[in-house]
Amino acid sequence: MLRAIERYLDPPSRGLLVAAPNDDAAVWRGDPLVVATTDTMVEETDFRLAWPGFDFRRLGRRLISINLSDLAAMGAEPRHALVSLSLRGTLDLGAVRRLYQGIAEQAHRFDCTIAGGDLSGTLGLLTLTATLVGRIGARSAMLRRNGARPGWQVAVTGSLGGAAAGLRLLESGRRPATEIERRWVSAQLDPAPRIAAGRALVDSGVRVGGDISDGLYREVERLVERDRLGATIDVERLPLARGLRREQWSLAVKDSEDFELVCAASAPRLLAAQRALQRLNLPLTVIGEIERRPGIRLRGRSGNERLQGAGYEHFR
Amino acid sequence: MLRAIERYLDPPSRGLLVAAPNDDAAVWRGDPLVVATTDTMVEETDFRLAWPGFDFRRLGRRLISINLSDLAAMGAEPRHALVSLSLRGTLDLGAVRRLYQGIAEQAHRFDCTIAGGDLSGTLGLLTLTATLVGRIGARSAMLRRNGARPGWQVAVTGSLGGAAAGLRLLESGRRPATEIERRWVSAQLDPAPRIAAGRALVDSGVRVGGDISDGLYREVERLVERDRLGATIDVERLPLARGLRREQWSLAVKDSEDFELVCAASAPRLLAAQRALQRLNLPLTVIGEIERRPGIRLRGRSGNERLQGAGYEHFR
Repeated sequence: MLRAIERYLDPPSRGLLVAAPNDDAAVWRGDPLVVATTDTMVEETDFRLAWPGFDFRRLGRRLISINLSDLAAMGAEPRHALVSLSLRGTLDLGAVRRLYQGIAEQAHRFDCTIAGGDLSGTLGLLTLTATLVGRIGARSAMLRRNGARPGWQVAVTGSLGGAAAGLRLLESGRRPATEIERRWVSAQLDPAPRIAAGRALVDSGVRVGGDISDGLYREVERLVERDRLGATIDVERLPLARGLRREQWSLAVKDSEDFELVCAASAPRLLAAQRALQRLNLPLTVIGEIERRPGIRLRGRSGNERLQGAGYEHFR
Repeated sequence: MLRAIERYLDPPSRGLLVAAPNDDAAVWRGDPLVVATTDTMVEETDFRLAWPGFDFRRLGRRLISINLSDLAAMGAEPRHALVSLSLRGTLDLGAVRRLYQGIAEQAHRFDCTIAGGDLSGTLGLLTLTATLVGRIGARSAMLRRNGARPGWQVAVTGSLGGAAAGLRLLESGRRPATEIERRWVSAQLDPAPRIAAGRALVDSGVRVGGDISDGLYREVERLVERDRLGATIDVERLPLARGLRREQWSLAVKDSEDFELVCAASAPRLLAAQRALQRLNLPLTVIGEIERRPGIRLRGRSGNERLQGAGYEHFR
C-alpha cells in the first residue's frame, strides 16, 4: 500500500531537497518566517462514508483545504504539506488512491508540495491529519487575532451558511436536487481556501483576521477577546449563500464551516481591501463593528437577536 | 478541554513568534534548511490502554520520541512540534492532561517547542499524530538512505531487541517482574531518541543512515536498495539488549522497534564515530558490511541464517 502513496509524494525539486518516505524525513530550503498548522478530520465526526455521493477524492481535497484555510487566515503562502493517514485495512486500494489524488491535486493547485507523510493501519475510524507549512514575507505582514480597535469595521469574504445548509442536506441522506443545493453541498465538502484573499487583505494593510471554521460568532469573539473588546454583528447585512432565506441567518452565524475569512480594520482600509478582493472576484462584506463593550451582540431588524445553541454566550 | 491543552502550548518566545491556537497557525523564525517528519500512533495497533501499568504520560513522551527518532535519523536538530490528537469524549481530563504533560516534557527535553496543534473528538480509537520540524546546518550534513559503497561497514547504536521483548511481555498481560524486564518494557514504551548520536554521526563524516522503526533488517535493506547494493549482517555481533539470549537474535533483526540508528561508512570513519558516541556513553557496534551483491544476508555461527516471517525476503 505504501507504493500507492509514494506516487503522490512529490519528488525532490528546487524547493524540496529530500522527500519522505524515501528518507526518514523531508528536507527543504527554509524561509525566514514560517507559518505552520495542523488539522484532523475524523470519520463519523467530520464526514461519513454513508453520505450520498461520498467521494474519497473530494475528501482528500478537503483535508488540504481546511489546513490551507488556516494559512489563509494568517495571510500566508503555502509551501509544503505532510499527510498522516490512519486507514482501515479493509479499505480498497481504489479508495486510497482517490484519497491521495485529492490530497495531491489540491496541494498542487496552491503551489504546495507533498513532502512526506505516514500511513497507519487502524481497526477503527478513518483519521486524516495534514500539517501545512507556509511562509510570510515579514513579521508585520500577517493577520492576527488581536490588535483590533473600537470603531473598526468587521467584514467577511464570500458568502455564509452554505456549508451548514449542505451539511444538513447530507445528514438527511437526500441527494442534492437543484443547482443551489449542489452548491451548498459543495461548500461543505469542497470549500475554497481563501489563500489569495488572505494575502490581498495583508497587502491592503489589514492586520486582524481569522477563518471561520467554528462559526462566525466564535471567530469574531476570538478577534476581540484578547483585547477585552466587543462587537456588534448586523444580522441584516450577512452575505447569505444563494438560496438561504433571511430567517435562516443563524446558519451563517453559528454553524458555519464556510472557511471564509473574517477581518477587522478601519473603514478606509477595508475599502482598499474590498477593491483588492474585487480583482479576485470575491466580495468582502461589512457586517458589523468593533466596540469597547466586551461581548458579541447581534443586531436584527427589530433590535437585538438571540443566538440559540450550547457553547455560545450571548448578550443583550 | 481546549483550555487543558493551551497550558501545554509554548508561549511566543524568541524562536516562536506566534503560537496556535491563539492564532490560526504558529509562526516561527525559520532556518535555511528544514527537516520535517510526521508519525502517528493508533490505539490497539501501536498501544493498548489494557497493557499492565499503561500510562498516558509515557504515551505522550513516546509520540514525540518516535518523531524525534526520524529527525535523529537525518542528523537533524529538533525545533518545533505540532500535535494533533483525536480523543474520545469519554476520556477523563486527567488522562488528557497526562498525555499533554508527556508530550511537552519530551519536546522540551530536546529543546523543541510545542508550537500548535489540533484536538478532535472521535467515537473510535485514539489516534495521535505529531509533526516535528527541525534543522540541519548544511545540505551535505545529513544522513541519507543512499550513497553507501561496497566494503563499507554497517553499525548500530545502543542495543537491540529490548523493545520487541518488552512488547511481548506487555501483550502477555504480565507486569515486568525484574529489572531486566522493566528495561525491556521501557525500551518499548519510552524509547530514547538518538538526536545527539545522529548529529555526532554527521559530525564524524557519516552520511548514510536511518532509524530502526520497522526492524533492523528492513532498515539495512533501505540503506542499500536505492543503490542496488546488498549487505551481510553478522548475527553473532548484534548488540542484544541485556537479558536476551543469542538464540533470540531474530527479536533484534525482525521485530525491533528499538529506534536505534543504523549507519554505513568506511572503517576509519566508523572508528571516529565510535569515539564521538563514546562521549555520549552510547556504543556503536559494527554488525556487518555493504556488498555489491543485492539482498540482505544473515551470517550465523554455522553459515547463513534464515529469517522467518512474512514480508521479509531473505537470500541464501
